[in-house]
Parts: sequence; structure tokens; C-alpha cells
Amino acid sequence: MIKKTEENKKAVVLLSGGLDSATVMAIAQNIGFDCYAISFAYGQRHSAELEASKRLAEHYNVVEHKILNIDLGQIGGSALTDTKLAVPEQLEEGIPITYVPARNTIFLSLALGYAEVVTANDIFIGVNAVDYSGYPDCRPEFINAYQHMANLATKVGVEGAQIKINTPLINMSKDQIIKKGMQLGVDYRKTVSCYQADAQGRACGRCDSCRLRMAGFKKAGIEDQTNYV
Amino acid sequence: MIKKTEENKKAVVLLSGGLDSATVMAIAQNIGFDCYAISFAYGQRHSAELEASKRLAEHYNVVEHKILNIDLGQIGGSALTDTKLAVPEQLEEGIPITYVPARNTIFLSLALGYAEVVTANDIFIGVNAVDYSGYPDCRPEFINAYQHMANLATKVGVEGAQIKINTPLINMSKDQIIKKGMQLGVDYRKTVSCYQADAQGRACGRCDSCRLRMAGFKKAGIEDQTNYV
Repeated sequence: MIKKTEENKKAVVLLSGGLDSATVMAIAQNIGFDCYAISFAYGQRHSAELEASKRLAEHYNVVEHKILNIDLGQIGGSALTDTKLAVPEQLEEGIPITYVPARNTIFLSLALGYAEVVTANDIFIGVNAVDYSGYPDCRPEFINAYQHMANLATKVGVEGAQIKINTPLINMSKDQIIKKGMQLGVDYRKTVSCYQADAQGRACGRCDSCRLRMAGFKKAGIEDQTNYV
Repeated sequence: MIKKTEENKKAVVLLSGGLDSATVMAIAQNIGFDCYAISFAYGQRHSAELEASKRLAEHYNVVEHKILNIDLGQIGGSALTDTKLAVPEQLEEGIPITYVPARNTIFLSLALGYAEVVTANDIFIGVNAVDYSGYPDCRPEFINAYQHMANLATKVGVEGAQIKINTPLINMSKDQIIKKGMQLGVDYRKTVSCYQADAQGRACGRCDSCRLRMAGFKKAGIEDQTNYV
């Protein structure tokens, strides 16, 4: 059970603009946190996701929305940042080509620095280990190890406090996430999940991420209002 | 004792352009690694450090030198990235204002992603816990926790291998580092340690980092050829 202390109501929320991060934002707000959103222009193939993060940050009236530029495309190695690699349209065995090396490690580290600066004691991230596409950095054991490391990395940690990594979706399936979000009034039309959305923000309906999203709505018995091509 | 395997000779070296990272580069080269250097344009107050990193990368004939832009100044909170905060010229008690929130966590995470992409099984970083200015993310317990997290974060880790974080300087004092570097032929005139070097790359001789460097040369009994203002 996530709680905020009376003294510290600040939380940093990683806001990609996707379905999961929108749900996490709604959860953090519902608990009563003052939210500081952080998004990353990391060289993803399209800007539809970032546009969605801006719409969500505005809708949820965050204290501040940081969009950090880090061009992971310079490092390469993923179909999500390297336009020379094709986004697969069938679920693959093992860790797929859409895996961005060390992405959640990098994003959490930047969120950790941001949390220290704004003196937030909580970080929210929408990882989940059920429909997680096989990414290693979405598993609970990764998050636990990250938390331990973060306690030792920071000034706050040295001073005996903690910046807590909250992962409210980690054990939820996509349909459970959608149901939770609907209870909290999330407008999923504002979100973009597709790995290769077009310039108008329309989803392809074929990539892994689209398939997980579609299956989630179907299983939840909720109409999928996503704008597909 | 750091060893390379016959199969994998690749190492990613974090190269700030300072005295420590230059020494680490020399150590990694001396062991026989093919070095991939990574540096960060993170909004530091001056570019002298990055210029030094380029000179060193060239001198050591690295396979590739990535300079990644990540503007930590956007996050703020440190005298090293926020020009509104003054760099102190006296050693302070506790964690100083030059601490950049989560810096080593962020840098190691980007190095980790880079190592995965170039399929390096080793990362070298010049942290040390002796003359470490009180930064929490320079301590051995932080590095150990980071290693554990990294093993769980990466595709390599899931597949049962490891990207090893090597910290050959961690238990060395500044004078020991300098002696080691001199043995390996490091030209310290190519390095910049100063927190506020001027446009010509000249060191102030007054900040924490200059003081540690000067004291190190003195204690090592080696002439300090740094270009001071």
C-alpha cells in the first residue's frame, strides 16, 4: 500500500504518454501527491508519445513537466530508436528487438536525480511484469535491486531517508490496469502505446505494444477508443 | 585483479577528461582492452573537461568515442551545472554543493546501455572512495549495489553473463593514483580537474577538485604541470 507522509507530498512520475504511465499518474494523484512529471525525448521513432505526455501532464495539472533530451539513438541497438531496424509485427520469443538497452535503468536514474532536486521522496513508474514484453528491466527483482542501489546513491539515502520507487502496476495484467484506470477516470484516448504511431498519432494496430493494448481492452470488456490507422 | 577474457576484449571507459578517468583509461588499455570511451555533455560549467576527453580518446586510440548530450542543468541542484550557484573554494563538511544529484548512477546507466550495444562485458569508471569529496555515489557499497542491479537490468544479465563494473581506483588515494598513472605514462597535462576552468582550459587552483589534485602531486613527490590561472 502506497502512502504519502504528511510532510512530503511530492512525487516524480515517469510519464511516457502510454496507457501504463497515464494510469500511474492517475493513481499518484488519487493518493494525493503533488506530481512532477518527467518524460524523455530519447530518439524514439515518433513524437506522438511525447505529445501524449504533454496532454496528460496538462490534464493532471502537474507542478512541473520536465522533458529531457537524451539521444539514445546515438547509442543505438533497438528498433525503437534505430530507424534502420524494423519494428516486428509478431510477438517474438525471448527479449525482442524493441528492447532499448538499459532504458528503465537510465530513465529511473534521471528521475532519481530530479527527485533529489525537487525533494520528492517518491517516484512512480508504470512497469509491469505480467504483459511486459520480456524486458528484463520490468521485473520486480530489478526494481528491488534498483531501490537498494538508489538508497546508497543519493544524499537523501546517506541522510537516512529514502526515495521510494513505487510500481503500482507491477503485478497487474493489461486488462486490470485498464479497469483500474477507468475507475479513476483516465481518458485513454489521450494516450499512445504504438511503437510506430503516424504523424497524426494514429496507432498501427500491429506491433507488440498495440496487440497488448487491444487484447487488454477486449479482456476488460471495455470499448477500445484508440485511434487506429 | 581485473582480467579480460580471450573472447571479449571490449571495455567501455567513462572518460570525463579528468585525472582519474585518464588513469583508468591507461589501466584498461594496459590490460589489453579495446576501449570504447563515453563522455557526457551534461551542462557542466565549462567545456575544458570535454576537450580534454577528446584529447585523451585520441591519444589512447579508442575504437569509438561517444559524447552524449544530457542536460542535467535542466534538472539543476548542483553548483557544477547551475551557474547561479557558486563553486565553493573551501572544503565543506558533509556532501558539498558540487554534488550532482544521481550523477554516477545516470552516467553508469548510459555506459551500461552502451556496453550492451557494443557487446562489451566490462565498464571502467574512475570513482574513488578515499579522496572522493563526500559524494555518496563514489563508495564501494554503491558500486556493489549498482553491479547487482545491472545484472538484473540487462539482456546480457538475463542470459547469464555479466557486464562487470571495474573501479580500479576505488581504494587509492590521489597520490597513489598519480603514481600509478605516471608508471603507465599518463600525460596529466592533457587532463582537466578544475570545476571552473577558464576558456583556455586553465585551472583555478582554488576549488575542491584543484586542491585535491595539487595535494596529490605534492604527496606523490611529482611535479604538478597543470596549467593554473
